[in-house]
Amino acid sequence: MRADLALIGFGNVARRFARVLAEKKDPLENQYDLNVRIVAIATGQHGHAFHSDGLDAVRLAQHVEHGGALEAMQAPGQRTPVSNLDCIELLAASSAPLKVVVETTTLNIRDGRPAIDHVEGAISAGCHVVTANKGPAAFAYRRLDGKARSKGVAFLFEGAVMDGVPIFNLVRETMPAVTVEAFRGVVNTTTNYIISMLESGEEFEPALAFMQQQGVAEADASLDIDGWDAAAKAAALANVLLAADVTPHDVKREGIGPATREAARAALRAGRRLRLVASGRRHATPQVSLQELAAVDLLAGVSGTANALVLQTDLLGEVAVTQLGGDLTQTAYALLSDLVAIRRRLPVLLPTPADRTP
Amino acid sequence: MRADLALIGFGNVARRFARVLAEKKDPLENQYDLNVRIVAIATGQHGHAFHSDGLDAVRLAQHVEHGGALEAMQAPGQRTPVSNLDCIELLAASSAPLKVVVETTTLNIRDGRPAIDHVEGAISAGCHVVTANKGPAAFAYRRLDGKARSKGVAFLFEGAVMDGVPIFNLVRETMPAVTVEAFRGVVNTTTNYIISMLESGEEFEPALAFMQQQGVAEADASLDIDGWDAAAKAAALANVLLAADVTPHDVKREGIGPATREAARAALRAGRRLRLVASGRRHATPQVSLQELAAVDLLAGVSGTANALVLQTDLLGEVAVTQLGGDLTQTAYALLSDLVAIRRRLPVLLPTPADRTP
Repeated sequence: MRADLALIGFGNVARRFARVLAEKKDPLENQYDLNVRIVAIATGQHGHAFHSDGLDAVRLAQHVEHGGALEAMQAPGQRTPVSNLDCIELLAASSAPLKVVVETTTLNIRDGRPAIDHVEGAISAGCHVVTANKGPAAFAYRRLDGKARSKGVAFLFEGAVMDGVPIFNLVRETMPAVTVEAFRGVVNTTTNYIISMLESGEEFEPALAFMQQQGVAEADASLDIDGWDAAAKAAALANVLLAADVTPHDVKREGIGPATREAARAALRAGRRLRLVASGRRHATPQVSLQELAAVDLLAGVSGTANALVLQTDLLGEVAVTQLGGDLTQTAYALLSDLVAIRRRLPVLLPTPADRTP
Repeated sequence: MRADLALIGFGNVARRFARVLAEKKDPLENQYDLNVRIVAIATGQHGHAFHSDGLDAVRLAQHVEHGGALEAMQAPGQRTPVSNLDCIELLAASSAPLKVVVETTTLNIRDGRPAIDHVEGAISAGCHVVTANKGPAAFAYRRLDGKARSKGVAFLFEGAVMDGVPIFNLVRETMPAVTVEAFRGVVNTTTNYIISMLESGEEFEPALAFMQQQGVAEADASLDIDGWDAAAKAAALANVLLAADVTPHDVKREGIGPATREAARAALRAGRRLRLVASGRRHATPQVSLQELAAVDLLAGVSGTANALVLQTDLLGEVAVTQLGGDLTQTAYALLSDLVAIRRRLPVLLPTPADRTP
């Protein structure tokens, strides 16, 4: 089945996604019946591109990485999109049976826009939408999910928490009839890596500078160290898994700073570990807090670039998922796994029986 | 959609499954469109029962727990099944659109029978089959999977490893296009709990006696302590996730014994942990071996009744799933999650378009 995509955002994650799509072309076609074409690309600073027969996204990625503008690569006779929403409109006009907007703009912690607008625009235009941005699920899950359901399209966001390691798809697809009662996790890599460095005796400022230099910390360090990224993830997890209706601003939030060094070292001397833990429980306010954990706690063992989430459930007791090391490919993969999830539920999602056969 | 079930095996797991079905009746009907009836039950020592309109399995569970025979509860006018395969034939004659054999006999480590025969009988009769028994996937995965595919029915076995914690469904449903390169895990509760006790200074024999008294160790202790249970799980994991074609007898196998106490304590003194690890890698022989692990290894932190499996993948790096404590409900839940997985793929599995609408 042909799947046409519009990429809204063409940063590191989206460019890696374009390359993963090319690498996995064969299994996508043969195992999942997905013949994927990227027909529109919207960048923040390098303009827009469109081709109704599909763009060479890997080549455009290289072009952008060398500082080029997409307009310069536009094929003759193809309309050049004038905005992000215009890219979505052009996708919506495609005759492909599967039309998916792939949203990868960066998180705006103030109100989640414009990612929310992109998701909403995609749904309104009758397109499925997958995003690696935490904003839509953290700020507007209930509304967007309701809107997607009423339009018969999918709104998926596996990449919002722990990159491509399945969390939302895990609960949705493999834990039917299970009620998640609570969650707790180490979900922000920058703060956890800094805490690991502080435990080893490093000072706070050099540790933070190192993480920024490695490209792991957000450019705006406050997103990580003030706990905003973890709070956005806690809000998304609470909204989706615990039926909450909160935003990151509702999350009780704590961050890390120079004083964390002594707290981390004191915990270590006492045979314990300091961790920035995102947690939530049904009918309670989610929170992000520095916690001194017993050494046997699974989260105490999460160091360096690892992340982990513990789900407390009714039928399965406590189940933990650990990502032993994260990188860009994993976030890009999250988008691919959401794309396949959409393909798999097509018999339910497509409106007419004629579309049901692969 | 009506789903008629035949339970082959009516021990602890199957009886708990019958109770979980009753507890989750509402979500099964409303969220998953499953109206489940148990029409046939086959026990090892308490006979067989059948009712074309559905049995009261919870009442029959109580009856069996009080030592009663099922034949005594048979309703007038209903044919009493004469064997396990007869139960499957009676199910196959049902008019329900979804017919599922639920296999929960105990593992026969010699050759996996009669569980394999039950699975094969179900498939031949055109019924889907789910099993909590490791035997079919460990001894005959390739053959049974091929046969199920050619008959258009499902053969699922989530409960074979780590109870109901998703492993097979996780990879199948939420990691599309990912290649699992290798796995390593602590998957046998009895040996791991005994090793935890040995670390604390307990002697081997009393530790084993304690586990048998708790009902955790298999009646035949050799299945656990000689590594057979872990070997069966390693074979199932290798067959399904690594495209191997092995049986538990092909697995390089090690167990635990009185000498393990000193090894466990020596490891602990060196700041390390001894664990019985099941592992496999593509194109290599799976194994079960006692390994001294660094304290930071995720598997080193798996103690008591916890289990964990680390998957090494191409796109997602290393991902671990940890079950922080297992019990009977979780194994029973595995059967339920497989049942829902079958319902979800019905549009693909059912042969005629008329059957596709819920």
